[in-house]
Amino acid sequence: MTTFTAINLVKRPAGGPITKELFEIVEKEMPTVGEGQFLVKQNHMSLDPAMFGWMSPDTNSYIPPVELGSVMRSSGIGEIVESNHPKFNVGDRVMGMMGWQQYFLSDGQGLNKVEAPLPDEAILSVFALPGITASQGYFNVGKPKKGETIIVTGAAGSVGSIVGQLAKADGLHVIGVVGNDEKADWIVNTLGFDAAINYKTDDLDAQLAKAAPNGIDMFFENTAGPIQSLIVDRMNAHGRVMVCGLIADYSKEVPSPGPSWVSVLKRRLTIQGFTMPDHYAQVPELIGKLTPYVMAGKVKHRSHVLEGLESAIEGLNLFFTGANKGKLIVKL
Amino acid sequence: MTTFTAINLVKRPAGGPITKELFEIVEKEMPTVGEGQFLVKQNHMSLDPAMFGWMSPDTNSYIPPVELGSVMRSSGIGEIVESNHPKFNVGDRVMGMMGWQQYFLSDGQGLNKVEAPLPDEAILSVFALPGITASQGYFNVGKPKKGETIIVTGAAGSVGSIVGQLAKADGLHVIGVVGNDEKADWIVNTLGFDAAINYKTDDLDAQLAKAAPNGIDMFFENTAGPIQSLIVDRMNAHGRVMVCGLIADYSKEVPSPGPSWVSVLKRRLTIQGFTMPDHYAQVPELIGKLTPYVMAGKVKHRSHVLEGLESAIEGLNLFFTGANKGKLIVKL
Repeated sequence: MTTFTAINLVKRPAGGPITKELFEIVEKEMPTVGEGQFLVKQNHMSLDPAMFGWMSPDTNSYIPPVELGSVMRSSGIGEIVESNHPKFNVGDRVMGMMGWQQYFLSDGQGLNKVEAPLPDEAILSVFALPGITASQGYFNVGKPKKGETIIVTGAAGSVGSIVGQLAKADGLHVIGVVGNDEKADWIVNTLGFDAAINYKTDDLDAQLAKAAPNGIDMFFENTAGPIQSLIVDRMNAHGRVMVCGLIADYSKEVPSPGPSWVSVLKRRLTIQGFTMPDHYAQVPELIGKLTPYVMAGKVKHRSHVLEGLESAIEGLNLFFTGANKGKLIVKL
Repeated sequence: MTTFTAINLVKRPAGGPITKELFEIVEKEMPTVGEGQFLVKQNHMSLDPAMFGWMSPDTNSYIPPVELGSVMRSSGIGEIVESNHPKFNVGDRVMGMMGWQQYFLSDGQGLNKVEAPLPDEAILSVFALPGITASQGYFNVGKPKKGETIIVTGAAGSVGSIVGQLAKADGLHVIGVVGNDEKADWIVNTLGFDAAINYKTDDLDAQLAKAAPNGIDMFFENTAGPIQSLIVDRMNAHGRVMVCGLIADYSKEVPSPGPSWVSVLKRRLTIQGFTMPDHYAQVPELIGKLTPYVMAGKVKHRSHVLEGLESAIEGLNLFFTGANKGKLIVKL
């Protein structure tokens, strides 16, 4: 009997780091490919902060949680190794939600062929969840105007790095908030951000004042933490906050309070939370907006590749420590 | 020499109750009415929470602060007692920003004739700042849908009481938050709210759960305070928060933190601050939306009338204590 490895979620995280006890590593029997089906050998999986939402039990969340005992949800890219489907052929490269497993049996629903002549890492880092999330938040929620100032937290992350580069290409003044000096250097000297702030320094407000002499019009939030209130209190009238992620709160049982609403009222701010499952119908439009920037060489990326399916578990903690350099990808 | 009384702002409040030292009561010489001018004897002035913003030094605020040494800003209604203006005649009733004073010299700019056959108190309570603020926040920011649940803080206040009645007329489930049992009784038994919560009780979250069994879709915020986070954490996906006022924070040097953004993200909420000076061009449209409700008897009001110009000073503190019953108006 031929088997393959899969990882099931068996327990929900309750704050604190992600541990092996939350998962069960199982050997599954290689399935028989029926009529209208095909089998994908997954080559690269994407790790994304959205996974903390998918593991959480919150029924008000944006997408049903992963059922306990079933394969952990993730997107990935693979190659078709067997097919009885009229439109998908052996050798085709496909992308979609295949989960933490080496093989995936599909009837084609939810999987798309990858035609672009780019490596898996580039596709997963720019055109998958990071790119469409950045585009939805930046263009559709944020409604940027040339000459405005934008601040992006998690600025060296997969979404934040794209947002900042789109804004820079559009003529905004771009400030990135990061957690170490290597990332500060990368976003300024490689990606072209106007300024970087390391949130672990102790004169945060003074650094904000210096980096944003004309105040802040757009705040693209990926992280939470004490800088949240300092930013909001430096926002200009009619500023927009796009709440995309709050990674620092995901490992806490009780999240930190948010900024007072006094600035929200006085400066007539709009704070908007958004998550991609509400906008999947807009993906073609979002890819359409993003593509010209990528083609013009305006969107650089870097990938942090982990080796082997099981590395995904420990890999999730890199979102909390920030020790990764670039988009987290697992090579199978 | 004939004189009249005016009250100037001479010091800005720095948290805590409003005291007489912030103001100077002055006698001014009755002005000569020039060509194109007219003189108004003010009969009723409106006291509004927006005044705390007008007195504050925050340069990022929505309207320039009252200059120290000049008349305190306010709206009111009066009668023209002398006129050299072609379009305004002696005996005409006019409304506008006339400030804390008995007489007001005008060239007509910013003043409007009051034609409706309603007493000053009704005009100031429904068709002035409270009504247009309620309309802007409820209709244009909140975008209500029949069957949704709305919660209004400061629900017995001038703005909140109108918002709740509009929502009730539109078929929403309406919950009001108030500070005493008399107000709770008034909003439920006279205004027709579905439920009232006294925020001074200690099982707030249980009361919220009971009053909003289907969660909360719209949150019209007038007060701040600990109930803010409890409400946000009971909001449904795509809920809208209209931040109109934060009276409990106006008397504090450092305002309280706001709700965590975790619910903002997970439930994809939109939190929007708004103030009326951004929307003065829309006032005719807003009055147009409000009028049919008033004509149909759907908008009741009550006024709390203070006697004499100087009562305005101490009167402002009623916004903090909540001891007023209805729209605060000063009779001159």
